[in-house]
Amino acid sequence: MPDLPVPDLPAPDPPVPDPPAPDRVRIRFEPDGAQSREVRVPAGATLFDAASWNGIAVDSTCGGHGTCRKCRMRVVEGAVPVSRLDPRAFGPDELRAGWRLACVAHAEGDLRVEVPPLVTRPKAATVGVGRQVILRPAVQKRCVTLTEPTLADQRTDVERLRDALPDLELRIGLPVTRDLSRAFRADPVVTAVVVDDVLVDVEPGDTAARLFGIAFDLGTTTVVATLLDLATGTPVAVASLLNPQQPFGADVITRISATMMDPDALGRLTALAHSALDQLAGEVCADGGVDRREVYEIAVAGNATMCHLALGLDPEPLGVAPFVMAARSFDDLGAADLGVAVHPRARAYVFPALGAYVGGDIVAGALASGMDRDRRVRLFVDIGTNCEILLAAGDRLLATAAPAGPAFEGAAIRCGMRAAPGAVEGVKISDEDVLLEVIGDVAPVGLAGSGLVDAVAAMAAAGLVDPSGRLVAADAPAVPPGLAARLRLVGKERVFVLATREGYATDDPAGWLYLSQRDIRELQFAKAAIATGWTLLLEGQGLTPDDVAQVLLAGSFGSFLSPAAAVRIGLVPDVALLRIVSAGNVAGEGAKMALLSLRERAAAQALLEEVHYVELSDRADFNDRFVDRLAFPG
Amino acid sequence: MPDLPVPDLPAPDPPVPDPPAPDRVRIRFEPDGAQSREVRVPAGATLFDAASWNGIAVDSTCGGHGTCRKCRMRVVEGAVPVSRLDPRAFGPDELRAGWRLACVAHAEGDLRVEVPPLVTRPKAATVGVGRQVILRPAVQKRCVTLTEPTLADQRTDVERLRDALPDLELRIGLPVTRDLSRAFRADPVVTAVVVDDVLVDVEPGDTAARLFGIAFDLGTTTVVATLLDLATGTPVAVASLLNPQQPFGADVITRISATMMDPDALGRLTALAHSALDQLAGEVCADGGVDRREVYEIAVAGNATMCHLALGLDPEPLGVAPFVMAARSFDDLGAADLGVAVHPRARAYVFPALGAYVGGDIVAGALASGMDRDRRVRLFVDIGTNCEILLAAGDRLLATAAPAGPAFEGAAIRCGMRAAPGAVEGVKISDEDVLLEVIGDVAPVGLAGSGLVDAVAAMAAAGLVDPSGRLVAADAPAVPPGLAARLRLVGKERVFVLATREGYATDDPAGWLYLSQRDIRELQFAKAAIATGWTLLLEGQGLTPDDVAQVLLAGSFGSFLSPAAAVRIGLVPDVALLRIVSAGNVAGEGAKMALLSLRERAAAQALLEEVHYVELSDRADFNDRFVDRLAFPG
Repeated sequence: MPDLPVPDLPAPDPPVPDPPAPDRVRIRFEPDGAQSREVRVPAGATLFDAASWNGIAVDSTCGGHGTCRKCRMRVVEGAVPVSRLDPRAFGPDELRAGWRLACVAHAEGDLRVEVPPLVTRPKAATVGVGRQVILRPAVQKRCVTLTEPTLADQRTDVERLRDALPDLELRIGLPVTRDLSRAFRADPVVTAVVVDDVLVDVEPGDTAARLFGIAFDLGTTTVVATLLDLATGTPVAVASLLNPQQPFGADVITRISATMMDPDALGRLTALAHSALDQLAGEVCADGGVDRREVYEIAVAGNATMCHLALGLDPEPLGVAPFVMAARSFDDLGAADLGVAVHPRARAYVFPALGAYVGGDIVAGALASGMDRDRRVRLFVDIGTNCEILLAAGDRLLATAAPAGPAFEGAAIRCGMRAAPGAVEGVKISDEDVLLEVIGDVAPVGLAGSGLVDAVAAMAAAGLVDPSGRLVAADAPAVPPGLAARLRLVGKERVFVLATREGYATDDPAGWLYLSQRDIRELQFAKAAIATGWTLLLEGQGLTPDDVAQVLLAGSFGSFLSPAAAVRIGLVPDVALLRIVSAGNVAGEGAKMALLSLRERAAAQALLEEVHYVELSDRADFNDRFVDRLAFPG
Repeated sequence: MPDLPVPDLPAPDPPVPDPPAPDRVRIRFEPDGAQSREVRVPAGATLFDAASWNGIAVDSTCGGHGTCRKCRMRVVEGAVPVSRLDPRAFGPDELRAGWRLACVAHAEGDLRVEVPPLVTRPKAATVGVGRQVILRPAVQKRCVTLTEPTLADQRTDVERLRDALPDLELRIGLPVTRDLSRAFRADPVVTAVVVDDVLVDVEPGDTAARLFGIAFDLGTTTVVATLLDLATGTPVAVASLLNPQQPFGADVITRISATMMDPDALGRLTALAHSALDQLAGEVCADGGVDRREVYEIAVAGNATMCHLALGLDPEPLGVAPFVMAARSFDDLGAADLGVAVHPRARAYVFPALGAYVGGDIVAGALASGMDRDRRVRLFVDIGTNCEILLAAGDRLLATAAPAGPAFEGAAIRCGMRAAPGAVEGVKISDEDVLLEVIGDVAPVGLAGSGLVDAVAAMAAAGLVDPSGRLVAADAPAVPPGLAARLRLVGKERVFVLATREGYATDDPAGWLYLSQRDIRELQFAKAAIATGWTLLLEGQGLTPDDVAQVLLAGSFGSFLSPAAAVRIGLVPDVALLRIVSAGNVAGEGAKMALLSLRERAAAQALLEEVHYVELSDRADFNDRFVDRLAFPG
């Protein structure tokens, strides 16, 4: 490793203080006629949650509200106290035999539990990385028939509604109180719209079948919206657009800088985020034939900077050491706080962030890929300017952020460009020729991130780049004659010419689409930073790359990446290619899960406690590992 | 009782469903060196609250937050479990000896408690009817010094603040989160402004000494504002104005009718209420040298209709049977919801109502007059178009509303007028002449409510009105010669001429200021309705008027009423005049108490449970008692 300078690392990423590992208990569920399963859940979780989280179907028509009395289970080992509701569902003999309602039975120690056969099958939806989510949205509609008030029954409108929904402890604000009386007097049958514990509306008549939510993936580059039918769990419509904040900068740091230089920029960035979210809301509602007023909740997964900007929070402290967020999570947000004109009192859930550089998008992605539910050794890698890496190993969940720099975004690469028509996304090199895959099947214009990785991997395989990352000379012995002509100089720098753009002579350097020595170094530093991240995480757990059962490549870039090329350049551990999975837009999947299930939302919140953040920048062994990882495997 | 028709009663007033009497426990406090006192409080109350409510001073510098550990008491009879905080304040021997922190010691059974001598004397203010209120406002300011964040301490701004205020469970909304970071970065010393559990602001520097609130008495006729210094409990400035809703009607029923006839009226009435409250807020702040932003909470006492109108709630259901309110109380109101521009996130407390016609003004009045703290037999009478009556007797608290009609407002009286310059407020009749007290020392123009009562009382005493309420003829034997000329006819109706207005000939009926037979009947019906109310309340408790220890006359009308005249016409029980007390503006005093003390606010809420509403309109004995009470005592 001779002449390689160890680069100045960008400012270190935020360490999250080391939290105590949460207490977990072991529950063995023995479903009637099915195989028993042992799960580990935080102490205090209900048996209902523990089963639902782990995809074990539980009878229930009230969604765990304690009203349907169907979620019967029998505790056969370990003890669960009798709750207030149990005596209404079971006789004394049954209680003594261990029968409990699962939704009010809290597991404080290890248990063995019999689950009777299902009478009704709960609704579920498949989202994320093969995750089965049992429907229990924060949004619920409850249709009730109210008796007319009389002189003998002068309960207020609010009391009348509360009495009709005795299982809910509703928060009822002034605006909905204003509408309440009108609905009551229009129709004795009304439908209460409740999100969490907030009464959002009371609609005349029975509207219980119509309830929708919108899940947003608020990316730095792209914003995606999915309209979900919360009664069935099915997606109704999807739309996306480029983040209109782009003119303020391609990445989070340049957008933060913009707010530091111009006092009006924050307001404008916030307005742009709002307009993007609102435009997408309009599109998916129009597309799905849904009235905007039927959308009662939105969920947003985004990195800390995107969320700060969308909420009008000054992002400056995120951009300068010591990288402090205003808040980790936000209670009591309305869709209006994010500029989304759906139901005027619709609520909003914004994914909590682990840190300024391990944001809500990563928490959502970890949720969607079930990083907390799987005891196998798994790596989750979200590649971007800042690369977030999660390692799940048994009970441990670790996170780190690696400063990969802008190589993958195309900005730092001479001929780099965004993944758009004309961008090279795949490169194959034979002895004779170079074959390019171009987005949109047009003439090549530039090189996308995935094309960059592919190109360097192919060049290393062809011997055009040596293990230290140096472009070989055109007259080097290993260079096939058909390729030698592509090894040229631009100025004094060696380059490899992939193609000549349309309208240029083959010999005109102005028309070359090439990779330069410096481009290869940029990629080399980026992949080394990422590989150092997962290497140190694995080493910390006494693991090697061979132990890794699965690598999830997340984010829009990760999804396009060729697993073979990623292994080839050492960006991910050298495991069987089948174990490398493009997880797709996991942040968006996480946002959908949060809309579909309060339990998943609780699991996301629990991740804040469970994930241990590993700070790389102050590690003595970082530079050694970084240098080790610079090489391109032979 | 010959020819008197029993009037058609106005629509009946709302019965509140009979609540179970709350459990109460007995606590005997034995203060060091002072006389011991037994009090009765709701089960579960803390010893701190029980003592504070009853004016027994308790050492405390944190106001019962569990942080100062000064409110030490020793339970010598009965048991109070050891709380989580007690072991931090006491050793094991002390705990065994019964020492507890009063603010976390809940009385679930009867107790005897020793109170050690005071080290610091808590701040207190005298308000209401001689009520001593120990300062514990919902508004609190907490000055904290924050450490600078570092790479090793990247807690979010919100976490940093929460950790600095470990005794509070703050609700932190998005707008204050936006301001948080700015304050933190301006000054490491910041002052958190907290109202209840809501973080209202974080101000740079130490501003802990400046905190204010405004108490509003939102009357149908008059609106009064008092600016209170919440650090000291002292009133800083007072202002009042006529309710600008008057053009929509003098009383609540006409204003409700206005909203039923014109769909825009509610919006206009709400805007008028807001402008009145906001104008007064501006006046008291200017007068007191207080920045509007230093006002962090307002409290409003008003009847149900005034509160509905001010909050933009449709009042129509209050005006038609079965008289249903939209809500009894309101959580989470901001001053902005009432149109009051003080601190933009200032909170608002609106007194809860017992019923559509026993509103928050009466609850505030009952609080201010300590109706729940006194075991004597006491009557509270708030005279108006609707007359609210409370009876406290031992542990019982009863309420009723008597439909008095408009006699006292002047509207139904031929020469009636509002209590304004030119209004006769007192009348004395000798054998020879009639002596008038006129507001503003000008020539008489009309008759105010208090003057009406005075006049009829004096006429009854002089034999000009017989016990049945009939005006005697001018030639009746009992009429003194000096007064006979005043007994005249207007049309076919007998009248008694009190004066001739300026600019008229004595013989010109157009200039007469008189009381007609019909006026006397109006008053007679009104006072009979009121007297029937308290008679039935007393009878229901097996009491007679002789048992009444105190009569409190509340409201602006009641405050001007001559106790002697009120007894004379039978409006109040015939008790020693010293026992009849003008309680003044008790609703406004109650609003002040709510600002000064969360405990008083809790007591107001408890009144909703404790007061038993007695419906008069469906009582079989109502008409009998009403006829009994029509006579003017001889």
